[in-house]
Amino acid sequence: MAVATQPAVALRWDGRALAVLDQTELPAREVWLDLTGAADTAAAIRRLAVRGAPLIGIIAAYGLAMEVSKQPGLGTLEEGAEVLASARPTAVNLAWAVERVRAAALAAGPVSMAAAARAEAQRIHAEEDAASAAIARHGAELLAGARRLLTICNTGALAAGGAGTALAVILELHRRESNGVRVLACETRPLLQGARLTAWELRRARVPHAVVVDSAAAGLIRRGEVDAVIAGTDRVAANGDVANKVGTYGLALAARAAGIPFVIAGPTSSIDPALPHGDRIEIEERGAEEVVAFGGTTVAPAGTEVRNPAFDVTPAELVTALVTERGVAAPPSTASVAQLLEGR
Amino acid sequence: MAVATQPAVALRWDGRALAVLDQTELPAREVWLDLTGAADTAAAIRRLAVRGAPLIGIIAAYGLAMEVSKQPGLGTLEEGAEVLASARPTAVNLAWAVERVRAAALAAGPVSMAAAARAEAQRIHAEEDAASAAIARHGAELLAGARRLLTICNTGALAAGGAGTALAVILELHRRESNGVRVLACETRPLLQGARLTAWELRRARVPHAVVVDSAAAGLIRRGEVDAVIAGTDRVAANGDVANKVGTYGLALAARAAGIPFVIAGPTSSIDPALPHGDRIEIEERGAEEVVAFGGTTVAPAGTEVRNPAFDVTPAELVTALVTERGVAAPPSTASVAQLLEGR
Repeated sequence: MAVATQPAVALRWDGRALAVLDQTELPAREVWLDLTGAADTAAAIRRLAVRGAPLIGIIAAYGLAMEVSKQPGLGTLEEGAEVLASARPTAVNLAWAVERVRAAALAAGPVSMAAAARAEAQRIHAEEDAASAAIARHGAELLAGARRLLTICNTGALAAGGAGTALAVILELHRRESNGVRVLACETRPLLQGARLTAWELRRARVPHAVVVDSAAAGLIRRGEVDAVIAGTDRVAANGDVANKVGTYGLALAARAAGIPFVIAGPTSSIDPALPHGDRIEIEERGAEEVVAFGGTTVAPAGTEVRNPAFDVTPAELVTALVTERGVAAPPSTASVAQLLEGR
Repeated sequence: MAVATQPAVALRWDGRALAVLDQTELPAREVWLDLTGAADTAAAIRRLAVRGAPLIGIIAAYGLAMEVSKQPGLGTLEEGAEVLASARPTAVNLAWAVERVRAAALAAGPVSMAAAARAEAQRIHAEEDAASAAIARHGAELLAGARRLLTICNTGALAAGGAGTALAVILELHRRESNGVRVLACETRPLLQGARLTAWELRRARVPHAVVVDSAAAGLIRRGEVDAVIAGTDRVAANGDVANKVGTYGLALAARAAGIPFVIAGPTSSIDPALPHGDRIEIEERGAEEVVAFGGTTVAPAGTEVRNPAFDVTPAELVTALVTERGVAAPPSTASVAQLLEGR
């Protein structure tokens, strides 16, 4: 495979139309999808053609803006907002971004609704871009000197409008530590975002890395092969509990047992102040075929039942630091999380 | 798929010749392999056509017996023992069983070497059968009342000469608890012994079960969905540290955090009294293709580096109980493990 040198991008917006990289086709093929409104955007989010908490917020914002541009009106706006906000239940960014575009469109009134919605979506995109850059800076300062990093899922440019969250921190550390950083990327079952997407991004950025099965992470951490664990987040509760890709909680336990930092990186748009603690976060359960069917091969006996929670919850007391664009809550708590949100 | 009602068996020995079920073909096909001596038996063990610590000991014993039956002699014996004992490095049963057959053959002398080797291999097989039954009994007594069990890898009849170890305990509990037992089977990456083999055995035994990705286990344990975790072992150090399928250590951390029992089941042939603690256990690292190539599909960018440790080590202090055919060490410690071995 030729190694590209330009940074990865997950979406293209030309002011009117949106194209997204179909992440289900990576790393084998780079296929771009043209999206036109609420329904096809929601479908792309549901089938994980686009994924990553910050990114699905941005994409949903553009989806709603395109929908009201096609046919401005209150009905279109409300229906489109409903379809998009319910595409996936766990990431709070989705509902947050849709609500922002909806509110901006409502405030503008029927005549300028479409322009206002597009402007608000672009504003969200620009803010999330800037948030990525700030998260990368704050995280790299926090983890200065850490060179052997372990991460899960994909939290880079493919998961955000800009450089990403946890993976953006890793890339920034790679630059600051004179290319001395080495990454263990958990493959991230069932859909292998680590093996498929994070390895693809790290390769483009020329960061040395190896892929491991998710269950190997704890043992390698115990053997002293990791300086810090860093992951993204789909939703942070008011007390600092974190919902993220299934497997994150196990990494937090292993990091705590080994006495190494366990860091969560995400924009403040991932914080849900209305949620007192993490056990109230709705955990999306996805279909059995993601687990038992693999590249056309069924790996379990026909009809085998599956439990497939897409996320888990890591209690705040296991999180060393929550890194956001507005600074670091270390450790995250009701007080430190509230402080991050002040004046947001 | 039709559900068979007879118990699963992993090998057939007719007194002279050995056939083994090729476990790499399960659950799609039941293919039997005829083995004839040391080289093909070692190859079958290496490529995991037969696996499971107790089973590979039995199979290697028969392999050596068949080898010296073909051409009795010291050279054949020593070379055959070497090839078989080095087929895989982590499970101690392999070296232990090979050494028993070798010693019996040496003691018998050249004329009756072949018969003595066959007799010793059959003795090992019979002992491991009986050990499985005793482990199932001891484990079911220990876990009486536990109904929601989580396990990893395959530790049933496909992993042993008899009913198995951890899965034998689960099947015994299923009988004792009026069929009230329900199992979460970790799929067990990279080779999916849980999804392929444990689900197949549980289906034959009509035990309700669901498959989960390995990384989902910790979150489900935290949510209170599991009464106890039970796993097998490939090697137990003198102090009770346990080497087992990669991922076992993470389950132990999750069980401890949730305050539920974490139980290891295995025959005393899995105990290595010469090894003071678990960090001295050699951990087999297997090839990259097991992780990044899947059913003919490559899931990571071409050339992606992989770390693929097949096992991890769980420290004794995380193990609630070690269940063997000679009783239970609860918790395992240098003293309680030594007591199990007394007079072995």
